[in-house]
Amino acid sequence: MSTQAVKTRGRTNSKAAPHPLALELTRLLGGHKVLSSSGERRMYSYDAIVMGVVPVCVVLPECTADVVLAVRAANAAGLPIVGRGAASGLSGGAAPTVPSLVLSFTRMTTLRIDPARREAQAQAGVVTAAISEAARPHGLVYPPDPASFRTSTIGGNLAENAGGPMCFKYGVSGDYVKALEFVDADGEVHHLTRDAYDLAGLLIGSEGTLGLITEATLRLSTPARFTRTLMSSFASVGQAADAVSGAIAAGAVPAKLEFMDGACLGAVEDYLHLGLPREAGALLLIDTDGNDLETVEGELELVEHACVRNGGTVRRAANDADAASLWQARRSVSPALGRIRPQRMNEDIVVPRSVLSEVVREIEALGKASGLNVVQFGHIGDGNLHPNILFDPRTESEEAVHALAQQIASVAIRHGGVLSGEHGIGSMKLAFMAEAIDPVTLAVLRDVKQALDPEGHLNPGKVLPDAVQDGAGSSHA
Amino acid sequence: MSTQAVKTRGRTNSKAAPHPLALELTRLLGGHKVLSSSGERRMYSYDAIVMGVVPVCVVLPECTADVVLAVRAANAAGLPIVGRGAASGLSGGAAPTVPSLVLSFTRMTTLRIDPARREAQAQAGVVTAAISEAARPHGLVYPPDPASFRTSTIGGNLAENAGGPMCFKYGVSGDYVKALEFVDADGEVHHLTRDAYDLAGLLIGSEGTLGLITEATLRLSTPARFTRTLMSSFASVGQAADAVSGAIAAGAVPAKLEFMDGACLGAVEDYLHLGLPREAGALLLIDTDGNDLETVEGELELVEHACVRNGGTVRRAANDADAASLWQARRSVSPALGRIRPQRMNEDIVVPRSVLSEVVREIEALGKASGLNVVQFGHIGDGNLHPNILFDPRTESEEAVHALAQQIASVAIRHGGVLSGEHGIGSMKLAFMAEAIDPVTLAVLRDVKQALDPEGHLNPGKVLPDAVQDGAGSSHA
Repeated sequence: MSTQAVKTRGRTNSKAAPHPLALELTRLLGGHKVLSSSGERRMYSYDAIVMGVVPVCVVLPECTADVVLAVRAANAAGLPIVGRGAASGLSGGAAPTVPSLVLSFTRMTTLRIDPARREAQAQAGVVTAAISEAARPHGLVYPPDPASFRTSTIGGNLAENAGGPMCFKYGVSGDYVKALEFVDADGEVHHLTRDAYDLAGLLIGSEGTLGLITEATLRLSTPARFTRTLMSSFASVGQAADAVSGAIAAGAVPAKLEFMDGACLGAVEDYLHLGLPREAGALLLIDTDGNDLETVEGELELVEHACVRNGGTVRRAANDADAASLWQARRSVSPALGRIRPQRMNEDIVVPRSVLSEVVREIEALGKASGLNVVQFGHIGDGNLHPNILFDPRTESEEAVHALAQQIASVAIRHGGVLSGEHGIGSMKLAFMAEAIDPVTLAVLRDVKQALDPEGHLNPGKVLPDAVQDGAGSSHA
Repeated sequence: MSTQAVKTRGRTNSKAAPHPLALELTRLLGGHKVLSSSGERRMYSYDAIVMGVVPVCVVLPECTADVVLAVRAANAAGLPIVGRGAASGLSGGAAPTVPSLVLSFTRMTTLRIDPARREAQAQAGVVTAAISEAARPHGLVYPPDPASFRTSTIGGNLAENAGGPMCFKYGVSGDYVKALEFVDADGEVHHLTRDAYDLAGLLIGSEGTLGLITEATLRLSTPARFTRTLMSSFASVGQAADAVSGAIAAGAVPAKLEFMDGACLGAVEDYLHLGLPREAGALLLIDTDGNDLETVEGELELVEHACVRNGGTVRRAANDADAASLWQARRSVSPALGRIRPQRMNEDIVVPRSVLSEVVREIEALGKASGLNVVQFGHIGDGNLHPNILFDPRTESEEAVHALAQQIASVAIRHGGVLSGEHGIGSMKLAFMAEAIDPVTLAVLRDVKQALDPEGHLNPGKVLPDAVQDGAGSSHA
């Protein structure tokens, strides 16, 4: 991606006069906190999946007071404001849909661990993995683990209410928030705890459309003493789904429960040559954890029985290194898929576990009928599935891709599912919201947006389908 | 309380013509769902602590459609609407502050357990304890356990986001909500999951001021296999607070961690004669739980060491019956206090654990200086403390009680605490909100209220101090 940015830089006129807002922000904050050249700004126009509009100006705030000044200056200039963490998001949440001021929080990295309170206080730009790294010497961890957690920021995680494999047992990012600091659309600073009206909960997952999260107080917990890992391959997706249901019904609460279909598995194997069973139709990767080894192994046994009973071929990880290499397969899905087609449309549906096998089969059939390349993987424990449409915009129609994405979204909704498990709505899934949410409820959500951002200055074109009428943004690999 | 109601019934004119809304609702819903006589209505004017205004009419809806009809009829008549569960609340949330239509949800008791999804689907009037009772045969429980859980309803628990002893380890009521059905101020029905803007989270704890929760889908979990119980008495409150901090710092995560001061302990002992150590200045009651007996007993040992190191005299429960009798002491605090003075002002502050002993001492000193009777108890693990002012309105000044309550709230706020741990704000703590919440944040909360209830019809005079200017409601025992 950096190569692409360097290339485009040559094409732009870096001598063009900066936008008046850039001049004003330079005056207010100092030039080292403001990016105004075309080449620099271009690098803040996309996230990991959506190519957005090049911002008018980029500010790199170093403290909450900088955010306040930037918001007020943007308001005075009549320009929208888009917050941004590491931009590893998969729904376009951080990619501007109109010319905007981008606030990139990557310099706000103050992190304090309070072992006695079992809390971390983290500014928005703290990298998620850094929290557990700092907490671990005190015997504590921050459990949420989105796939990007070594690069993504806590501010971005909270804006999208990001999930991850650990969510099934341990909950999503927002479940760990005890207090929030945020800057509202007028540039006022708020300190929220989670009582009275849970405004903090409303901010979490709102993708910077209701306010800009500048700092969070997070609950830490004691890590499990023991973890056991198992991989099981199946001839069909339905068998894998049934094995999951069987294991959970038997009383197992795995710490992680991940699924890949045969196409996804093949892509990873082509990429890493890990010796995965290429002929399989579906693969499950499962961790059980806890403080009592007997219980942890007992739970793994319940899972193993359920897999075997449903035709699975089971392999237990022999040790930590073996477990790590199995998990490498799952963590490498995104880069592996990038090798197949240059672009992808990444969905993030959640359906009841009881209909998983039906949903996966229907989506597989839709993919085959469309002639497009569809792979499926996800956190099957809580029914969170990521159907991905892989395509090449030079040879395949983006309209066909969007039509198929819409059909896939409809399958989820028809089976009582939702459209965003952990990636947020962003701009990518905006077009599907009208189908997913009842018009009367959408009207109430719009009233809430109106109450917190009456001018519509905060991240326009995200979450709610009123701001942008022309559908989902375009995707890139 | 029923005695009181029977007495007052005799005094009222039950022959007075019903309110036109009662006639309209009788026409719409049938007479068996409408209470209109003065004696009947009076019984819906109070909760467990606040005496409110007698409602104009009471509806006992049997389904969501009844709620919709009632809300629309009340709107047409220009009357406010107050939702009500079992009215066991301790902040006045269900007690009308102005003449209103009361919707009492006690007939909406449909409950379905889905063991495969580990979910319960409960209408608002389901008694909280009934959920675990129905789930237990499937090896599942609903962990939140407010003290009133044998009488309180899940709708009331969610409206107040009720806590309980289990909260320290297992979280509050709202943490278990996967989906909500609610009826808004216009009588529209909404079905919410917890994605996009978390409107469900906003409804939870909003005390019926933003909408009426009619049904919830709740996450169930597997109960711990082993529980161990310990009681420790201390000469001073400070020692008990230090023991708690020490145990938690050492790595114990007790399932329950309850505190009573000497005055509270004395009241319970006078009431039940359990053989509690009357001479003690403070008492801790602690459960550890888990699936591994060694870990559970190891955690109890950490707690025991911390208690002994801080001068505590420890008694371990010998068996389940012994543990139950120790917990009976805690569950009997409310009735025990009712015997000392006929009325009480019950606060619900949460302060950082690190300042607990200081806060308890300051409140104790304020109580002594005021000459009023103050007792303190609460879920000390998460810093949730219930200072109670016991008083007799015939001989003690209510103004002095309110002044002291305000001073106690100020102590909490000064030490970085909040005013509502688990009881809600209701009308009782309304007067303190202006001090607890920054004016700019209060303005945003008012905007949110305005967005969801523009006419201010839903439970006026609760949560936000704009609707009622004349302070907290009066309390009764």
